[in-house]
Amino acid sequence: MSILKLVSSKAASEIDKELMGPQVGFTLQQLMELAGFSVAQAIQREYPLNQNRNKNGVFIIVGPGNNGGDGLVCARHLKLFGYNPIVYYPVRSKRTEFYSQLVNQLEFFQVPILSEEQQNKWTEYLEPGKIACIVDAIFGFSFKPPIREPFGTIVEELNKLEDKIPVVAVDIPTGWDVDNGPIENEPSYVPSVLVSLTVPKPCSQCINPKRTTHYVGGRFIPRHFAEKYGFEPYEYKGTDQILKF
Amino acid sequence: MSILKLVSSKAASEIDKELMGPQVGFTLQQLMELAGFSVAQAIQREYPLNQNRNKNGVFIIVGPGNNGGDGLVCARHLKLFGYNPIVYYPVRSKRTEFYSQLVNQLEFFQVPILSEEQQNKWTEYLEPGKIACIVDAIFGFSFKPPIREPFGTIVEELNKLEDKIPVVAVDIPTGWDVDNGPIENEPSYVPSVLVSLTVPKPCSQCINPKRTTHYVGGRFIPRHFAEKYGFEPYEYKGTDQILKF
Repeated sequence: MSILKLVSSKAASEIDKELMGPQVGFTLQQLMELAGFSVAQAIQREYPLNQNRNKNGVFIIVGPGNNGGDGLVCARHLKLFGYNPIVYYPVRSKRTEFYSQLVNQLEFFQVPILSEEQQNKWTEYLEPGKIACIVDAIFGFSFKPPIREPFGTIVEELNKLEDKIPVVAVDIPTGWDVDNGPIENEPSYVPSVLVSLTVPKPCSQCINPKRTTHYVGGRFIPRHFAEKYGFEPYEYKGTDQILKF
Repeated sequence: MSILKLVSSKAASEIDKELMGPQVGFTLQQLMELAGFSVAQAIQREYPLNQNRNKNGVFIIVGPGNNGGDGLVCARHLKLFGYNPIVYYPVRSKRTEFYSQLVNQLEFFQVPILSEEQQNKWTEYLEPGKIACIVDAIFGFSFKPPIREPFGTIVEELNKLEDKIPVVAVDIPTGWDVDNGPIENEPSYVPSVLVSLTVPKPCSQCINPKRTTHYVGGRFIPRHFAEKYGFEPYEYKGTDQILKF
């Protein structure tokens, strides 16, 4: 893993700020669309439908911030790819109108979002014969421990489930410290797939390549900008929005 | 071509309105990102870089409306795919702040946009040995003849160039009537590639499959919505954002 260039949580936050700042002018909507699409593409690559048509469920756990927004976008693309996504969104974002629009879009696409009553028994929706993977879109690189409820309990469940149903982590496995990985006395789990967004964060060095497949996604950085932040641009192939390490 | 389901310009406009209406809640930024990406993917599929690395130029002619916006997004993705896009944007949109942001993004990606002086000699940028294709992102399905200047002259040039450099039309070949195709006494040209967005418009029936390769792109319509408007959803493959007919 030594060839992998990483950026700290601080640098990741600066990159995001600059990409959406006045000079570059990306909007959150654009970046989220591309990031969510890239996660959906990684899932299609890892768990293709042609192998088992009945196992087309994807259970997406959505956090209250931008990592959650990536999960909502990912769910929509998965539906278009032929999967049956189910969304578990226990703490809804009230940040901007756009988050309500992402939910509207999912309703329009007939993607089920668990009701409050269904949320109390969310693990019942995880039938190993039907669910290809779980997506952890709970917290991203701005996460700071300790983990809040209900997410602590959710991560404990992911830990118990990790040998039964693979978990795909969006950018950061929830519960991990962005710079240092799993934290003592905090709940954590081992993802089967990690999709780093834009550039891997230091905690990605804590994965064991035998247990976790690592992708980078979110292809929206030009060469000179990557070099400015001290990493090489990745050699994505063709029109791919993900690159497997 | 009889199996192709088409929608009139009127229905296309209704579909757009509904997709961005309060019930569905797509934003223009999201749809444009996906549409522009799909055009870039069609170009990569038709004119892959591995065949001729020196012929990596793509000359993108951008109109003042949403079709032009698709072209601006397409240019950015092409740059990320390794092409050298050049943008000719003679009448800049003042619709919303978002159009300025799309231009900022291109400047950040170091994609050249012709200056006013350069615009006077735009055809000089079209060296057949260097330009893989021209993109016509001038007018979309809301175009009504007669064609305004400078676009009339531009289309006349495209007509002269069509045997030298392939032209990729975004949704509608500029100058064509959306429902009826080429118009008597109006300038027009024959595209080498047509990328219909969301669903082909009736004028796509006027193409000769021997001269024009036809794709549909803009994969953002669920099955039940397609059926409501009387067309089948297209059988896109994997995570592809385009489908070749």
